[in-house]
Amino acid sequence: MLDAVSVFEDLSPLPPQDPPITTSLDYEGDDVAPGSASAEIPDAAACRERTDVILRGPSHGNPFVDVELTATFTLGDTTIRVGGFYDGGGVYRLRFLPPTTGRWAFTTASTARSLDGVRGAVDVGESDAPGPVRVDGRGFVRSDGTPFVPLGTTSYAWTHQPEELQQETLRSLAGAPFNKLRMALFPKSFLFNSTEPERFVFERDAEGAWDTTRFDVEYFARLERRIDDLAASGIEADVILFHPYDRWGFGALGAAADDRYVSYVVRRLSAFPNVWWSMANEYDLLTSKRREDWDRLAGLVVANDPVRHPLSIHNWVEIFDYSADWATHASIQGGGREMAQSVAKWRTRWNKPIVVDEFGYEGDIDQGWGNLTAEEVVRRFWEGTLQGAFLTHGETFWRDDEVIFWAKGGTLRGESLPRLAFLRELVEGVPGGRIEPLPSDWDFVTGGRDGYALTYFRDARPRFRTVRVPQNMRAKIDMIDTWAMTVEELPGIHEGDVRVDLPARPYIAVRVRAVD
Amino acid sequence: MLDAVSVFEDLSPLPPQDPPITTSLDYEGDDVAPGSASAEIPDAAACRERTDVILRGPSHGNPFVDVELTATFTLGDTTIRVGGFYDGGGVYRLRFLPPTTGRWAFTTASTARSLDGVRGAVDVGESDAPGPVRVDGRGFVRSDGTPFVPLGTTSYAWTHQPEELQQETLRSLAGAPFNKLRMALFPKSFLFNSTEPERFVFERDAEGAWDTTRFDVEYFARLERRIDDLAASGIEADVILFHPYDRWGFGALGAAADDRYVSYVVRRLSAFPNVWWSMANEYDLLTSKRREDWDRLAGLVVANDPVRHPLSIHNWVEIFDYSADWATHASIQGGGREMAQSVAKWRTRWNKPIVVDEFGYEGDIDQGWGNLTAEEVVRRFWEGTLQGAFLTHGETFWRDDEVIFWAKGGTLRGESLPRLAFLRELVEGVPGGRIEPLPSDWDFVTGGRDGYALTYFRDARPRFRTVRVPQNMRAKIDMIDTWAMTVEELPGIHEGDVRVDLPARPYIAVRVRAVD
Repeated sequence: MLDAVSVFEDLSPLPPQDPPITTSLDYEGDDVAPGSASAEIPDAAACRERTDVILRGPSHGNPFVDVELTATFTLGDTTIRVGGFYDGGGVYRLRFLPPTTGRWAFTTASTARSLDGVRGAVDVGESDAPGPVRVDGRGFVRSDGTPFVPLGTTSYAWTHQPEELQQETLRSLAGAPFNKLRMALFPKSFLFNSTEPERFVFERDAEGAWDTTRFDVEYFARLERRIDDLAASGIEADVILFHPYDRWGFGALGAAADDRYVSYVVRRLSAFPNVWWSMANEYDLLTSKRREDWDRLAGLVVANDPVRHPLSIHNWVEIFDYSADWATHASIQGGGREMAQSVAKWRTRWNKPIVVDEFGYEGDIDQGWGNLTAEEVVRRFWEGTLQGAFLTHGETFWRDDEVIFWAKGGTLRGESLPRLAFLRELVEGVPGGRIEPLPSDWDFVTGGRDGYALTYFRDARPRFRTVRVPQNMRAKIDMIDTWAMTVEELPGIHEGDVRVDLPARPYIAVRVRAVD
Repeated sequence: MLDAVSVFEDLSPLPPQDPPITTSLDYEGDDVAPGSASAEIPDAAACRERTDVILRGPSHGNPFVDVELTATFTLGDTTIRVGGFYDGGGVYRLRFLPPTTGRWAFTTASTARSLDGVRGAVDVGESDAPGPVRVDGRGFVRSDGTPFVPLGTTSYAWTHQPEELQQETLRSLAGAPFNKLRMALFPKSFLFNSTEPERFVFERDAEGAWDTTRFDVEYFARLERRIDDLAASGIEADVILFHPYDRWGFGALGAAADDRYVSYVVRRLSAFPNVWWSMANEYDLLTSKRREDWDRLAGLVVANDPVRHPLSIHNWVEIFDYSADWATHASIQGGGREMAQSVAKWRTRWNKPIVVDEFGYEGDIDQGWGNLTAEEVVRRFWEGTLQGAFLTHGETFWRDDEVIFWAKGGTLRGESLPRLAFLRELVEGVPGGRIEPLPSDWDFVTGGRDGYALTYFRDARPRFRTVRVPQNMRAKIDMIDTWAMTVEELPGIHEGDVRVDLPARPYIAVRVRAVD
């Protein structure tokens, strides 16, 4: 077992785990020369872009479970272990995300003799690709260290809809401010979600039952195009591995099938720079799995993901204990009307980023979680953001054809969108793009850092307010209408206590910026 | 000690307490004939209206503390014990609220010989007076059993303002929907409250210090006119005995002075039908008093109040334990944005009415508790009301002269007022005028009883909703816009599951009423 190091990841390395797939030790017999497979090496690999080294190998039996293939990619002192996967038709892929330029030499190991001990090298050139996101303290950065401020939305089953609808979704996302999308690999059976998808993760056996030992490579090929499509719009795919909205049995496949599924998915997708992992949506409704199952399955994600993408799990009611080693961040459902208070409480619990991935949906359906006004959505975003959290949007506007964005995609129409973009711009103006909570009170929430503070008066409507500029600071003060998206700078440079007249209506903020 | 029974009160009688004032046993010496005082008995006493029997007695020394005077009023099997009080100038009053018509015979007892053993009778005729309010289960009724649905507002220091402003306040209240007013006997020193009042509860001594053994009878005469003025507008005076906003020392007078004060006030005011008692505002800021002090002082209220008016105590942060025998109802500060949840929690704690006497103020001042929008005030009212609570309004709109209604009175201008009146009308339409909480969910709160249910969708905005009429019920269904104050009856009589189209905007309610 190689002790691989991911250069994308600065967290403490986790204990290495054995490859999860158990294979026969001598799959092909003695008549094939060891390492005799031909390797197709791409001509133009680029830094921070995925590259597939293709090996042609055996296709008899069931290579999905019979053949284990791994490789080590080495450049200088850095060694990265990559798990290969079978892609049908005798094609095996080693999917690699090179973190740096240069000649990365590889050597394979396999239970199939022809695939074992194959050597080669991939020449990796420069690129402008932004690279994967990783956790940095209580926030996120790109692999080059630039801040990444997540602003997500949600469409659980969009890749299980007809192609035309998927294209509509992509067009809408391309024009929206979001840079992360929560999406499930398994299809969804739920209110307003009865469509039978064309393809599934697994193949079916002769009787039409799921063959959980064989993956539908066409399903994955289509999925991967969608993940690339998202990348083209600057969107991270927050991939949900399990969920409870199920009429097909995917929520309770049993441990062996779960393990195969997780390992296969992670080996296929981990070289996509824009992937995040969510072990589950509403894990506490998946009653067939227990905490030890999540730990085991998350361990498989970590073992098969050399990039170490962000990894978390999402609750229904019972918030997960994100002190788990494998959890890079919190991915919470909750917060409610008192979002600032909720986030403040969560921040003290784990020293990890707080992502509030679900707090209710902007929309107008007949469900309690799905008919928030845009004003309320924007208010919760401001409150949580100024307490240092990252919130995720979702939309549930009624359409007569039951295409509701939260599940099926379609066209976003929330009035919150430009306001959320406006908020993100303000956050990106904070030094380092990172908000730290600052002292708040009943009717306002303050966050910022390093001489830059945003104070948000929620839906309160003070007519005036005294703003205290810290001692030894001179500052500019702006009045911000978070709904109208206007910024009005007060004349002059200010010190000490400053009375700021406000318009006595909700959703007003004040920004204080130190000047030299 | 007489074991007096109050016919206004159906709670279990509390243990009788000794009169609190310790007096010399032989105040006047032997040269006055026992019972020689002349009693002035009003010609036209009326049922449920206060009547004063006046005795002329000694004025030397300090009758406030030197003379104890009580009387028993008896009619048939009913005996009511009334504590008299000294009103200056040799005048002693026995203030009596006759619960029934007829000839009420009285006999006095006093430590002053001339006042001891005086006998007489008051002939009590009919009246239309509504009588005092008392607790009935988790609600309130008038003494004649008709429902009383409290809808209060707040003006802590209005009686300590110049006469002209008090008249403005009374004019405004006369045109407003409120039927209860929280008001303090001691003046207020706080933000926007620096006025020195003309008169105080106590007289001053020669050095200008408070003489807590002598009450300013002119202060009380004026106060009583104000309580009568409120009664003329159908408003209960929720009299606050202690509070912490103090620069005069009234918050820490010591137990002896506190006891004299409470007994004197209650003897003077308990015969006003429209009085409620609040032991304190924000009791937990009155750090010189402990739980045993509140129990002792409340015991004095009970001992000196034969009417047994509603009695409670109001918190800042720490909600009082209203299981105290003497507390007739909860008088809570709190509730916040999640008012329905808060009330639901409190209802399980004590089997008493829940009055939320403070949850923030409609206004626009620069204080976190004082700049709620009317929309938010009305929302909290609906939520709490449909959970069976009674909420209290308050206003803090800025005025350049710092006359802010919450403290000084003036003119109410909240946009909530007509909406609160509208809500009360709907509540009064519920059988018995009493809302019981019914099953609620994320985005709606339901309350009602006996085939009358109101479902309020808060600030959610469903486009439609399925309303389930209970089995074996036929019902009318109305759509209510709680902000626009409109009621629109859906055509027809409905059974089973009914899809109700809604306007997809906040603050909508649906009413279901059973028909025969």
